[in-house]
Amino acid sequence: MTKHVYFFGGKKAEAGEKLKNLVGGKGAGLADMVNLGIPVPPGFTITTEACVYFYKHGMTFPDGLKEQVMANMKRVEETMAMKFGDTKNPLLFSVRSGARVSMPGMMDTVLNLGLNEKTVKGLAKLTKNERFAYDCYRRFVQMYGDVVLGLKPENKEESDPFEEVIEAKKKEKKVKLDTDLTVDDLKDLVVRFKKLIKTRLKVDFPEDPWEQLWGSIGAVFKSWNTERAIAYRELNNIPDTWGTAVNVQCMVFGNMGEGSGTGVAFTRSPTTGVDEFYGEYLLNAQGEDVVAGIRTPLPINKKQKTDDSVQSLEEVMPDIYAQIMQIRGNLEKHYRDMQDVEFTIQKGKLWMLQTRNGKRTAFAEFKIAVDMVKEGLITKEEALMRVKPEQLDQLMRPIFDPNDKAKALKSGNMAARGLNAGPGAATGRVVFNAEDAEAWAGRGEKVILVRVETSPEDLRGMNAAQGILTSTGGVSSHAALVARQMGKICVAGCGELDIDYKKKTIKVKGKVIKEGDYISLDGTTGEVFVGEIKTIPSEILQVLVDKTLKPKDSPVYKDFELLMKWADSARKLGIRTNADEPKQAEVAVAFGAEGIGLCRTEHMFFEGDRIDAVREMIVANDLKGRVKALKKILPMQKKDFMGIFRVMNGLPVTIRTLDPPLHEFLPHTEKEIKDLAKKTGTTFEALSAKIQSLHEANPMLGHRGCRLGIVYPEITEMQAQAIIEAACEVKKEGIKVIPEIMIPLVGYVNEFVLQKEVVDKAAKEVMARYKMDIEYKVGTMIEIPRAAITADEIGKVAEFFSFGTNDLTQTAMGMSRDDAVKFLRFYLDNNILAYDPFQRIDEDGVGKLMKIAVDLGRKAKKNLKMGICGEHGGEPNSVEFCHSLGLNYVSCSPYRVTVAKLAAARAAIKDKSKKKAK
Amino acid sequence: MTKHVYFFGGKKAEAGEKLKNLVGGKGAGLADMVNLGIPVPPGFTITTEACVYFYKHGMTFPDGLKEQVMANMKRVEETMAMKFGDTKNPLLFSVRSGARVSMPGMMDTVLNLGLNEKTVKGLAKLTKNERFAYDCYRRFVQMYGDVVLGLKPENKEESDPFEEVIEAKKKEKKVKLDTDLTVDDLKDLVVRFKKLIKTRLKVDFPEDPWEQLWGSIGAVFKSWNTERAIAYRELNNIPDTWGTAVNVQCMVFGNMGEGSGTGVAFTRSPTTGVDEFYGEYLLNAQGEDVVAGIRTPLPINKKQKTDDSVQSLEEVMPDIYAQIMQIRGNLEKHYRDMQDVEFTIQKGKLWMLQTRNGKRTAFAEFKIAVDMVKEGLITKEEALMRVKPEQLDQLMRPIFDPNDKAKALKSGNMAARGLNAGPGAATGRVVFNAEDAEAWAGRGEKVILVRVETSPEDLRGMNAAQGILTSTGGVSSHAALVARQMGKICVAGCGELDIDYKKKTIKVKGKVIKEGDYISLDGTTGEVFVGEIKTIPSEILQVLVDKTLKPKDSPVYKDFELLMKWADSARKLGIRTNADEPKQAEVAVAFGAEGIGLCRTEHMFFEGDRIDAVREMIVANDLKGRVKALKKILPMQKKDFMGIFRVMNGLPVTIRTLDPPLHEFLPHTEKEIKDLAKKTGTTFEALSAKIQSLHEANPMLGHRGCRLGIVYPEITEMQAQAIIEAACEVKKEGIKVIPEIMIPLVGYVNEFVLQKEVVDKAAKEVMARYKMDIEYKVGTMIEIPRAAITADEIGKVAEFFSFGTNDLTQTAMGMSRDDAVKFLRFYLDNNILAYDPFQRIDEDGVGKLMKIAVDLGRKAKKNLKMGICGEHGGEPNSVEFCHSLGLNYVSCSPYRVTVAKLAAARAAIKDKSKKKAK
Repeated sequence: MTKHVYFFGGKKAEAGEKLKNLVGGKGAGLADMVNLGIPVPPGFTITTEACVYFYKHGMTFPDGLKEQVMANMKRVEETMAMKFGDTKNPLLFSVRSGARVSMPGMMDTVLNLGLNEKTVKGLAKLTKNERFAYDCYRRFVQMYGDVVLGLKPENKEESDPFEEVIEAKKKEKKVKLDTDLTVDDLKDLVVRFKKLIKTRLKVDFPEDPWEQLWGSIGAVFKSWNTERAIAYRELNNIPDTWGTAVNVQCMVFGNMGEGSGTGVAFTRSPTTGVDEFYGEYLLNAQGEDVVAGIRTPLPINKKQKTDDSVQSLEEVMPDIYAQIMQIRGNLEKHYRDMQDVEFTIQKGKLWMLQTRNGKRTAFAEFKIAVDMVKEGLITKEEALMRVKPEQLDQLMRPIFDPNDKAKALKSGNMAARGLNAGPGAATGRVVFNAEDAEAWAGRGEKVILVRVETSPEDLRGMNAAQGILTSTGGVSSHAALVARQMGKICVAGCGELDIDYKKKTIKVKGKVIKEGDYISLDGTTGEVFVGEIKTIPSEILQVLVDKTLKPKDSPVYKDFELLMKWADSARKLGIRTNADEPKQAEVAVAFGAEGIGLCRTEHMFFEGDRIDAVREMIVANDLKGRVKALKKILPMQKKDFMGIFRVMNGLPVTIRTLDPPLHEFLPHTEKEIKDLAKKTGTTFEALSAKIQSLHEANPMLGHRGCRLGIVYPEITEMQAQAIIEAACEVKKEGIKVIPEIMIPLVGYVNEFVLQKEVVDKAAKEVMARYKMDIEYKVGTMIEIPRAAITADEIGKVAEFFSFGTNDLTQTAMGMSRDDAVKFLRFYLDNNILAYDPFQRIDEDGVGKLMKIAVDLGRKAKKNLKMGICGEHGGEPNSVEFCHSLGLNYVSCSPYRVTVAKLAAARAAIKDKSKKKAK
Repeated sequence: MTKHVYFFGGKKAEAGEKLKNLVGGKGAGLADMVNLGIPVPPGFTITTEACVYFYKHGMTFPDGLKEQVMANMKRVEETMAMKFGDTKNPLLFSVRSGARVSMPGMMDTVLNLGLNEKTVKGLAKLTKNERFAYDCYRRFVQMYGDVVLGLKPENKEESDPFEEVIEAKKKEKKVKLDTDLTVDDLKDLVVRFKKLIKTRLKVDFPEDPWEQLWGSIGAVFKSWNTERAIAYRELNNIPDTWGTAVNVQCMVFGNMGEGSGTGVAFTRSPTTGVDEFYGEYLLNAQGEDVVAGIRTPLPINKKQKTDDSVQSLEEVMPDIYAQIMQIRGNLEKHYRDMQDVEFTIQKGKLWMLQTRNGKRTAFAEFKIAVDMVKEGLITKEEALMRVKPEQLDQLMRPIFDPNDKAKALKSGNMAARGLNAGPGAATGRVVFNAEDAEAWAGRGEKVILVRVETSPEDLRGMNAAQGILTSTGGVSSHAALVARQMGKICVAGCGELDIDYKKKTIKVKGKVIKEGDYISLDGTTGEVFVGEIKTIPSEILQVLVDKTLKPKDSPVYKDFELLMKWADSARKLGIRTNADEPKQAEVAVAFGAEGIGLCRTEHMFFEGDRIDAVREMIVANDLKGRVKALKKILPMQKKDFMGIFRVMNGLPVTIRTLDPPLHEFLPHTEKEIKDLAKKTGTTFEALSAKIQSLHEANPMLGHRGCRLGIVYPEITEMQAQAIIEAACEVKKEGIKVIPEIMIPLVGYVNEFVLQKEVVDKAAKEVMARYKMDIEYKVGTMIEIPRAAITADEIGKVAEFFSFGTNDLTQTAMGMSRDDAVKFLRFYLDNNILAYDPFQRIDEDGVGKLMKIAVDLGRKAKKNLKMGICGEHGGEPNSVEFCHSLGLNYVSCSPYRVTVAKLAAARAAIKDKSKKKAK
């Protein structure tokens, strides 16, 4: 006979953590506590398998269930020395759902089960509290009528029918509150409730406690498949086939007057993770009262008190408090994690009603994990598996002071919501262009740069701003991309904003925000607020980036450092960074980057005056003109590279040759074109025609990447010269330099071969001139499908591969990142895509191409070094995927380095445990 | 000892066709003729292997070569009963190159070898013609000095130094022509030549004939690696490693006075292919005289005579002519192909000097192949392998009257040259927009539509025009694509043209062409002419399309029909067509299309008033508005489909749901936008904003294809309704209908599933309403890499695949067809790409993706029907590739159907012979 029912209570429970799938999370927790010797009201759990059977067999119970329930009821009665349905000393029960995974509030519960016309009298006598007994009774009838019998409003006008009866009664009695009703009123309500049930449903309210019990068990089973439960499961990827367990447990009451009470607590702070007991309680109250917030709960211990006029549980019931503290220790030792518990004190006796792993902030998760390693509770690997990489990222960001933000929300200052593109919190004054941002910031103002969308020309302004707000563009828009790389707070694509550059105003929901007005951005949630909100800076950034805090003065940093050390020793993947400037590189190195995986040279082209030389090169009509302009750019690029080489100090630096289409560097307004015409000694018309001739229908697929360097080899030549010259100069300073030159957008092996020839020739010339030898590599991006598919050919000649998964995703999917915003949201909302492929590598499509490229590349050259430098390099799932592909490293923006490290460590640990399992 | 030398002469030759790789094409032809009993001056061939040895061993001859040459010389002397170097009866030789494959004019030749101060006197005596002997001598010294000794101009100012000597002599003698020089002058020239050699090169001219011979053999070997020979090989894909053979052959002279002569002939007409002997001759002349065009050659036979004042060889030397006619028959029987021969008559004796397969026009190729099958000379399969599919295409096009075109060229009327985008010839009056084209054509004018570039809105104008000329865009531009589909003559991307729409002028090379002026386009060559040039229409089109000619009245058509019948029985691939309109479908069916592989529904959207409804649908702000507009479009689409179903009469019709981004349908000029605003009852500002909001950075990768149908399922629904309603209506008429609905741009299987649901639901509703059952299929395009890579998933649910290789090429290569013109030409010119991937499937890249998709798709569903509907479907190499992939069909534009058929047949035949070879 299959075992359908598991007993818990007294000193012994039949189930526990190991049977969690069978008895559900709640049932397992109760059983565990019993087995740990913790006082738990006895009861039994009906398995999830019984629920599965119930659904597979036309809503019927499996054979043997009845007998097993009856047998277990007997054990409960024996344990409690009370009897179910006894008129003098009646056992009352709660019937609660409990799935494998918590689905809070999604399923049904019945309380005070076992009450009827006879037992209610017994209860009144026993508790010497008739009002309490009849209040329990009317609640039970109401709950049973709703949950089990299914009495619902008949039409839209009607609210809860039972509540309407109560309202009518109160009107008759001319009272306002439920508590103003007398015992007789309550008795009358029970009569009226039963009548309502009879009239509406043509059934009698069951007086037989057993009938009540079976009805409730069936109702809880049925509540597994309510619409909202199904929707919740879909949202949370919980299989419909799991089913729920049912917990039938003795009622205990915290509202039995003196010496009774109830509370909830976390074994450590869920906000900060600090190893302090943290909770709330109420005297003479039921659990719902704490949760529902009808009465304000009190602090559980003295430490938590902020107001001396209240008394903590520690003071009121020191014995009970001590008992709970003991339990706290036992539970943490057992679960090796922070617990969220519920307890009730019935007439001086403590009963634990629930324990489960507590939800916590990212900060708390991290703190608890590190502490528990120190305490010997968990291993380093377990700690690494607990802290989710994304949580780590959040540790870095300044955050809004929670109180101040709550105030702002209350005052209705939230103006709009956009994409949470750059996590963190920022407050500042609105400016509408990069120059203003720089100028205002220059005189010490904190500014928020507000643009319809940003472009590379806005870089310096973005850098100067506290945060960036755009009205168009997605998670991968220029604004968002740069924000992540810079570690900037950013809310992007906030379509509600109507930005007027001329008037320098934002219109939103009838409000008008002007230049200079304060706004606040929560880049973690995408919220935009009118006015200032206080922010709290991250200590870790203070230590690593600002260097305003010494490591030894920051316990948080020290914990962080520890976790990173563990991650470093666990991971197999190297972690590099995408950095275009010495300052970015510096930050990345501080975060532990092991090299630069992508240094984009085009970003440098916008700096200061050099854009003039770049434009001169582009509009030149012949080789001579281009070479002349390139000669002006050479020393600037060289200087850039020297700066980066110095910072990287012996770590490899992968530099990509020019990638974007040339028209991206050209001006578009009439004034700018006229200016440039004057500077380059041509006419407005001729220059306009040139700009027009460079226009492309699909710039993403146009004349860019190595296609530029092939048609204009002099550009690649100049860049190679600048790189190798810089390397020689820095080497002279005694610093080791490892340049890796990367050719973008290669599709044909011939393209790579030609570009490599140009680079090698230039390098040879420079090295001869300097009489020095620089060990450099020439490799390629794998960023279009053809490159992946022909990676065997390319692998023969390339000295490394770097997957450019941004472009590879765009081309493999035939989906423009910029344009996809128009339908991607729809796709995600409608489950056509499981996730945004521009955020996380599309493993089934793009990933397969990567796999092909890795296999073909390694076939060509066994130890071919391969990395990834797309945005995905900092996304934990993608990092894991890269680990599984056997890449050598991932490269991500400086502020994602630690995220990537942790993700890489977790991937390696998972791998290890998978292999162990085999 | 390796055999380095092969003898030919008398009745026997050692080599022949089978040793062509060893003795070269020329050597093999000479040997073959000897073995066929045809009179050939004796000689011997030094193998290509000896040449390879020569290069591998520092320009030295292999062991044994000397001995073998001497032995063979002896056989020649015996055959001719003359002696090399003999002072009385000297044997003279030509030394000529002869590679496996003809490289006309690329390598060196030495004639009259064996002459020196002594032998020249013998020759003079023997021929009784001192002038002849000394002219031969001075030519030999000159040729030897140049070719063997390498006497070249010393600087840029100097022309040929020997010619300068001659010019000086003529000046001294005050004569104009070489022939005015006396014997003594010639003798003096020899002296001066030798002196020049001595002065410049510090060597004596070799008097020893053997020394002359070895010098010449080495020189011919060396000429294999001259710059121009290498360049030629590169261009023609001839491996450098092949080397050349050397033919040492007795000289015969056609310029020995009476009874001597020389000529060239084709065994059939190289222009029309007609089975008539075709050639030219000159009396008392050398071969060079015929080729060089110094004297006008005469017709070889009476049939060719157009002028009664001249005499043909047939009349002058009837015996010789009869002998040649006999040889002609023998050669054709032997080679089973049309031959191009050279002959010399020395004092009444005929000598054949060369035979090789003759070059011919496409028309001749086709005619000869069909005739030779009829004559039993070759098999049907051989005929199919001879006619290149592209040649067939040319048969369909009107062509310029060659005389009239020559006149135009002579008069300097060629104005510019663009891309030969739509082969054929067209003449007409210049118009600058589609409306004018229609209007002018409406009143009977032949017009050429001239645009900077064309767009779908120009369709009707393009249709009305004789030809299309654009100043931008490549082979795959809209103009070129539509031109091919329509069978229109088109010259695209003619950058030299400066088109001014306002003034209605084209400026080119200082000329101004105005509206209404005549121009002529040669779409086969890309030439653009000012003025009219007469065209000749293709008979085949007259029969199949215009129906102005009956098949029985056109022998050409009958041959064509025959060839197609052979192709049909040989091929394995099905051939469908891309057609959007009944008229196109009709043409395709006439050409033998077996179904429609791609019917684009968007082209229909531009017809007449329907664009208004389409625009109304697009600018509608809600579902209701869209549905209202779609209801207007439904009956129009339905009518379109009915027309197509009727024409296809039981053949399958694959209809693609809406593909292009919606903004393509919207107006762009202020006036048009205002008009549309008025029509749709909105404001100019609101509509402009809507249009702006639909703008895309990369429309190719934007909101298009099934992404439209997913976000706006009502569009797909309407189209499915229109298709199934049309099918029901036509079925009622007793016509079988096989609709196949194709979902474009699928990347995720979910996309397809959702769209199939919409289609199935609509179809079910329509069939219920009509109470009919239509067998339809729902399949997908495979046109983005992700679809190819996940074809196993998609193959489970899709009922067919159709490769959209246009988009697949763009995405797999990350290359926009429109923008690639900017660098693709450079890539092709510089051998980075072997061919244009938008014309021919990139087998190594895109092809590999296709292979993956085929394999995965067939793994999911063993007999999954697969075709291709990209432009490549009509390109022979691509058709062959599709055959090798095992696709079920290719689909191409109507005018490419026969090309595709032939290509498919050839692929099947090649396959068969490959399998046989195994």
